[in-house]
Amino acid sequence: MAEVALYDTTLRDGAQMEGVSFSVHDKLRIAERLDGVGVHYIEGGWPGSNPKDEEFFAQAKNLRLANATLVAFGSTRRPNGSVENDANLRALLESGAPVVTLVGKASEMQASEVLEVPLEENLAMIRESVAYLRAEGRRVFFDAEHFFDGYAANPEYALQCARAAAEAGAECVVLCDTNGGTLPVDVFAAVSAVRKALDCPVGIHCHNDADVAVANTIAAVQAGATQAQGTINGYGERCGNANLLSVIPNMKLKLGIDVVTDEQMSRLTELHRFTSELANMPRNRYQPYVGESAFAHKGGLHVSGMAKTEASYQHVNPEAVGNAKHVVISELAGRGNIAAKLQEAGLTAEVPTSHLPGLLQLVKARENEGFQYEGAEASFRLLVERLLPRYRSPFDLVDFMVVMEHGRRPGKWSGGDALSEATVKIAVNGEVRHTAAEGNGPVNALDLAIRKGLLEFYPRLADVELTDYKVRVVPQGPGGTGAVVRVLVESTDGERVWATVGASTNIVEASWQALADSLEYALLDK
Amino acid sequence: MAEVALYDTTLRDGAQMEGVSFSVHDKLRIAERLDGVGVHYIEGGWPGSNPKDEEFFAQAKNLRLANATLVAFGSTRRPNGSVENDANLRALLESGAPVVTLVGKASEMQASEVLEVPLEENLAMIRESVAYLRAEGRRVFFDAEHFFDGYAANPEYALQCARAAAEAGAECVVLCDTNGGTLPVDVFAAVSAVRKALDCPVGIHCHNDADVAVANTIAAVQAGATQAQGTINGYGERCGNANLLSVIPNMKLKLGIDVVTDEQMSRLTELHRFTSELANMPRNRYQPYVGESAFAHKGGLHVSGMAKTEASYQHVNPEAVGNAKHVVISELAGRGNIAAKLQEAGLTAEVPTSHLPGLLQLVKARENEGFQYEGAEASFRLLVERLLPRYRSPFDLVDFMVVMEHGRRPGKWSGGDALSEATVKIAVNGEVRHTAAEGNGPVNALDLAIRKGLLEFYPRLADVELTDYKVRVVPQGPGGTGAVVRVLVESTDGERVWATVGASTNIVEASWQALADSLEYALLDK
Repeated sequence: MAEVALYDTTLRDGAQMEGVSFSVHDKLRIAERLDGVGVHYIEGGWPGSNPKDEEFFAQAKNLRLANATLVAFGSTRRPNGSVENDANLRALLESGAPVVTLVGKASEMQASEVLEVPLEENLAMIRESVAYLRAEGRRVFFDAEHFFDGYAANPEYALQCARAAAEAGAECVVLCDTNGGTLPVDVFAAVSAVRKALDCPVGIHCHNDADVAVANTIAAVQAGATQAQGTINGYGERCGNANLLSVIPNMKLKLGIDVVTDEQMSRLTELHRFTSELANMPRNRYQPYVGESAFAHKGGLHVSGMAKTEASYQHVNPEAVGNAKHVVISELAGRGNIAAKLQEAGLTAEVPTSHLPGLLQLVKARENEGFQYEGAEASFRLLVERLLPRYRSPFDLVDFMVVMEHGRRPGKWSGGDALSEATVKIAVNGEVRHTAAEGNGPVNALDLAIRKGLLEFYPRLADVELTDYKVRVVPQGPGGTGAVVRVLVESTDGERVWATVGASTNIVEASWQALADSLEYALLDK
Repeated sequence: MAEVALYDTTLRDGAQMEGVSFSVHDKLRIAERLDGVGVHYIEGGWPGSNPKDEEFFAQAKNLRLANATLVAFGSTRRPNGSVENDANLRALLESGAPVVTLVGKASEMQASEVLEVPLEENLAMIRESVAYLRAEGRRVFFDAEHFFDGYAANPEYALQCARAAAEAGAECVVLCDTNGGTLPVDVFAAVSAVRKALDCPVGIHCHNDADVAVANTIAAVQAGATQAQGTINGYGERCGNANLLSVIPNMKLKLGIDVVTDEQMSRLTELHRFTSELANMPRNRYQPYVGESAFAHKGGLHVSGMAKTEASYQHVNPEAVGNAKHVVISELAGRGNIAAKLQEAGLTAEVPTSHLPGLLQLVKARENEGFQYEGAEASFRLLVERLLPRYRSPFDLVDFMVVMEHGRRPGKWSGGDALSEATVKIAVNGEVRHTAAEGNGPVNALDLAIRKGLLEFYPRLADVELTDYKVRVVPQGPGGTGAVVRVLVESTDGERVWATVGASTNIVEASWQALADSLEYALLDK
């Protein structure tokens, strides 16, 4: 099959997703990572639409990209205007991006009812804008907006729009399923028809409103499209864009198209996590290929099947995309799962098989209290360690107290930040330390007070940093603030990353449990 | 196109998803709702695999289902065993379900390497198990496990397995993409071939490991499959199963297959929310068709396009699936978005256009502090109300203090629950009330203390209940317990449901803000 170029629009279309917001610095860091996985084109934004995007292109000039070319996105000239006086086209030129993707209407209805221009004027907007940027020395891709809907209603006009761009010098016409409502068979048919009618490479840009964006992208490639657009994690307006983290391994592992190298593909899981972090979006643990659960095995049947042959319940090797298989601890778990989990943790030799039923009972009892070990491997490890005769806890909590005030002390009231103070007693090898600290919240105050006490004994805790903190209500009581809350804490010491869990009706108590587990785990054998 | 039956396996395959766990009561309630949207078959579980599933079938006999038939799932007889002595087959009969779905291997490799039986014995297991259940008066569907992988490797043997089931009396052979790695073109080709080779209706069961489960299901239906299996919200092991909430509207609105009535389809959004709640899974707001953002419009360009023609940026009418279009408040928002939002809240008449830029500034400033109004419409409404000259706040906070102790008081230590006590001063029309309460956590104690003070003035607050409480860290500081946290609270008074937001470095403070907004909103005009 022909070569296919990857075009990423996370920084422009992805940023349109509800909840996603990137700083300029975020965008630069993501661009570097996109380059690292072998993406060919990185769309950085829409200069002229907002100052943040202009700033990105200004700073992006200092990026050293090994594989990727930067692309600026913008629209064709204004109706009835001239290309020379068009502020938007000028901003595209000023961005300095060597490639420009110009969006224009490729639908009769969109041209006449939304743009409200004669059909011929819409064609002129496309033709003149492409030609102008070409004359200014830019490479141009034409984004044929609403192509599939336009093609379904009036195929001849949709093709005219595509042809206008190609004839004016666009080097690729990208067919866009703007509303995301097209199904794969129809994408395949339309792309095939365009390929026949047009002497110009064709690209594909899909949205996920019908839950088939990845399939549509693959269908287009199978019909001859040679540029595949999408975003990391499928970010994008409404239901998102085609997810490149699925498109890439589907193309490489299932269609045999070498869009990226093996080494580049093995970074996809890392890119998934990195981009989620910068977008401040929860990771989708069920995400195909790269999610934490993508190769998880919960049912007892499957786990015993896995033991016989890896391929029996995995469609690809998880390592190909930098992921790993993962056995889930849960109430459905049998002893086989617990044993597999111990193996992952390297504890098989220390826990005799006869202890497995007891350990399973313990896990189930804790899960009934609201704990969840699926996302908290470090707490699971500690649960096991504490059962071992050789284990000695590095510290014990004697007691703590936290006081929060809001508006009580003159001068402290600032309409927002309440005062939080914690006192903590901990014991290390029989020595008790009593410390106090103020924090910008009760958990922060507790964290600071505990560390004060522990640092004297364990200086290396200075390197431990909390990187994420999540709270979830576990509905088992009457709900609301009276229910059990589960706290998940993610920590790092710069080398390892680990997650711990706490559960209680009291959010500070649950946080304390997860915090204490995190520090205790940090002190386990390195 | 031919009629298609819907087969839901949320209660069995869906429960295999990491993080999902249903009680028997949850399963019964979901079954009722599935019936309400017109699902034809509801797979209730695997009797014999665990007591919960047996309990479900015992209690399900009291369900009054208008459309749906209950199905029990189980495997063919054990290798080299007899059907009469098979505990699993007996449990299926004892479940009382009128239909049984029997799973068997339809792959040479699976039969010989995982089951480790001769290929002929695997065929006998299928044949005898189906015939036995038929002789006992049950309808039987055959779930051809690993069919697509088996068909790719040895098509003749995969077809033999399907044929064995059909000849023994299975009324439908369900082709299963167990590992979820097949692409739509290959599904289409294999289903077409089976339809030609087999004189028996064919069903489809897809997993989402290649991110194309919905597309595969649609491709199978286009190739002639007449039973479509899937789950609500796409729950299922690893990356999930085909999402029926996408499959149903795709079939009805795009392929013209009347799988459910218009009225039934309009309940899909409600079913999405209901099932998320019972599964204790966060709602996927980006979920096609039914997610809160599925018809959201963020970019300024699109919002102004929408004003011209609804169809210009929506692939279907959101009301068809019980959803609504939704305009997003965010930093990308222009005045048009704010105006649309005010219209949704019915406040357009009260806020003059000249106030819009100021309101936009306020929203942006609050979002910079960590607030997020996208999921908290009630807090947005209050933000606007408080700007109106006519608005009078029903109460004001003077101050509060919260004390938490863990292990300090003799007898209170229980290894888990710390003591929390709150004192609160509030003012209502100039009258100050000073109240105190103990709770099972700081937020609960605050909640109880505030209500003590307010109930005297506003007895109807007794009906207000908090139904959800979410906490998210907003990374903008150095991270960890020192960062800003955002709290989202969902409340109900039995009629309305509303969501409010708070943000602070102090989780108790942020909770207080969301709590206070919730109570204040409850006191707005009903």
